[in-house]
Amino acid sequence: MKDFNYYAPTEVVFGRQSEEQVARLVRKYGGTKVLVHYGGKSAERSGLLDKVCRLLTESGIGFVKLGGVVPNPRLSLARKGIGICKEEGIDFILAVGGGSVIDSSKCIAYGVCYDGDVWDFYLGKAKATAMLPVACVLTIPAAGSEMSEASVITNEDGDVKLGYGNNLSRPKFAIMNPERTFTLPPYQTAAGVTDMMMHTMERYFTKDDDMDLTTDLAEAMLRNIRTAVFAVLKNPEDYRYRAQIMWGGSLMHNGLTGCGVADDWATHQLEHELSGMFDVTHGAGLAAIWPSWARYVLHENLSRFVRFAVNVMDVPNDFTDPEGTALKGIEAMERFYHAIGMPVNIRELIGREITDEEIREMTRKCSRNGAATCGCLKVLKAEDMKAIYTMAKG
Amino acid sequence: MKDFNYYAPTEVVFGRQSEEQVARLVRKYGGTKVLVHYGGKSAERSGLLDKVCRLLTESGIGFVKLGGVVPNPRLSLARKGIGICKEEGIDFILAVGGGSVIDSSKCIAYGVCYDGDVWDFYLGKAKATAMLPVACVLTIPAAGSEMSEASVITNEDGDVKLGYGNNLSRPKFAIMNPERTFTLPPYQTAAGVTDMMMHTMERYFTKDDDMDLTTDLAEAMLRNIRTAVFAVLKNPEDYRYRAQIMWGGSLMHNGLTGCGVADDWATHQLEHELSGMFDVTHGAGLAAIWPSWARYVLHENLSRFVRFAVNVMDVPNDFTDPEGTALKGIEAMERFYHAIGMPVNIRELIGREITDEEIREMTRKCSRNGAATCGCLKVLKAEDMKAIYTMAKG
Repeated sequence: MKDFNYYAPTEVVFGRQSEEQVARLVRKYGGTKVLVHYGGKSAERSGLLDKVCRLLTESGIGFVKLGGVVPNPRLSLARKGIGICKEEGIDFILAVGGGSVIDSSKCIAYGVCYDGDVWDFYLGKAKATAMLPVACVLTIPAAGSEMSEASVITNEDGDVKLGYGNNLSRPKFAIMNPERTFTLPPYQTAAGVTDMMMHTMERYFTKDDDMDLTTDLAEAMLRNIRTAVFAVLKNPEDYRYRAQIMWGGSLMHNGLTGCGVADDWATHQLEHELSGMFDVTHGAGLAAIWPSWARYVLHENLSRFVRFAVNVMDVPNDFTDPEGTALKGIEAMERFYHAIGMPVNIRELIGREITDEEIREMTRKCSRNGAATCGCLKVLKAEDMKAIYTMAKG
Repeated sequence: MKDFNYYAPTEVVFGRQSEEQVARLVRKYGGTKVLVHYGGKSAERSGLLDKVCRLLTESGIGFVKLGGVVPNPRLSLARKGIGICKEEGIDFILAVGGGSVIDSSKCIAYGVCYDGDVWDFYLGKAKATAMLPVACVLTIPAAGSEMSEASVITNEDGDVKLGYGNNLSRPKFAIMNPERTFTLPPYQTAAGVTDMMMHTMERYFTKDDDMDLTTDLAEAMLRNIRTAVFAVLKNPEDYRYRAQIMWGGSLMHNGLTGCGVADDWATHQLEHELSGMFDVTHGAGLAAIWPSWARYVLHENLSRFVRFAVNVMDVPNDFTDPEGTALKGIEAMERFYHAIGMPVNIRELIGREITDEEIREMTRKCSRNGAATCGCLKVLKAEDMKAIYTMAKG
């Protein structure tokens, strides 16, 4: 069993009308002048943005608004935010939105307290030792960024998508009202669920078979979310199951499902190149990669894939044929992806066959010209990445 | 579904040799002069206390030692600790031990920053708004105090045992090395497991049937610990299962298993009078009460007891007889308690029959002379408490 640190200090305020507490919480965590950071029309249309701004105003907390965050959030906007914060004397960043908005907020918060270029952190050239406090009003459960230490930013200059993790960036508070997710379209709901499940699957498929509690909790979460997503696709205003998904998204990426085990992240890294190149939805990209990754690495820990098939995907265990059981688990996952409207390969993801040139380019980026590996269950070199992309062509 | 707040900011440092990090962590969380608070001989005998003190000394961190905490920790010692801290200019309290030591540390930490009598907080007469930071090197997994907001103190003046909860008191860090629990005697191991399971059972037996994720996680934890305890009773130095128990003890009481549901705590409150009167081990007291409580409240949410029987205790579901299935679950829990050396009634706990006079006295205290109720699944009045104590006589 691996030694571990677990640190998830975010104060979660969960429930109907939870956003009413936003001003009290900003003040509690020291905010006096706030950057309210958001995406596009949905936060405006729903009235949430106005409500948050009204509550801040009523409490005498100053703020500046900065919208325009897009999925796969861009470095250029974060740089703009850093400039605004410095000019305006902002001391607190409040993200109103989903993972992209929170990640962009974290990037801004790093940059304000750093004299160099914020991209240095994502390139691994620097480590943040201070940052502005970040908090969020969550509207899209998926990325888990509301409790996690991670942020992923796309540098348009070269279409490079990189992540940076630092415990300082775990949000001070996360306001979660499941009602705010009622209007999420089915595709975004399904992609979000795929992403959150993958955050736990990246930690579940490991060689560490001896941290039973973590594994048991991971399976409980995966089963739970697998049930919940069908309920909300049928009835988008089902509070009960929207709540399971919203809270599940946080728990699946706050570190809990990684305690005592090595984590993999190969599927995420392989996908980052896909969404970097084609600007597809991250969750959908994961679904397009995972089945091929799984078949490629199956024999690194066959019993774990059998366990997944039986305990998570409800595949009957054929004790005489572990490989067959494991493969049926992967097939069941593909059926699940299709059932919620997700792709299971790249053709289904981008609507055409990916070219060999594009695969070479993604492999080159993912392996940093052959210098880097990814994954842990099986450490993938450039040739493995290329093989998995090719298997995933569809 | 109930709205909820979840806040568990403790930094957990888990693994072999984790105590090596104690000085770094004390410094990280602002400690410059530390009260090292502990119980009795085991921390001294194991060398852990010396090691912690040596590491603090090597890092130039001053400290004062205060030992002597006993199970059901006493107010008088906490008062002594408050005096020492004020005299010595202590700014950080480090508990080396189990729940009693941590609870005593929290009590001291409250008292140092309060002009009145620290017992006011436990009497509900005051609410702490500031306290010294508390952290711990955990040696006995059971109480969950290493991540929780709770502390329970016994006032010898009248044998009154009361709890006080405040998020400020959640420890800054918790160092957990499962090897430090290898020497725990079987009785203490079993009582600890009983206590930690009860922390989750107090939240599991609820009328809120719609927070599926919390319920699923609770069942996963209960099943896991039920397996793990037999492994460590067989082989006390089984790192793998000592680790499940140690981490499980924290997760079962840090709030995670209470998200979205009402909690009950009647068994704990009924037990507080037992251990207040007879100074028995808290976990053993819980085992002596729970089966009677369960039978008494069964029909408040029968399906939940059926679910417990089937999903946690592996009782086959007799679909034609929910009550029978539920009762078999309670009987299975009694067999489990016996199998790990715990009592299932008061006679087994104290070694003799409890008198009617003693039951009256416990009922009087638990109900505060008839003025207070306890529990939530069924709100217990004085007559219910008396009935449950009487059922639990054995």
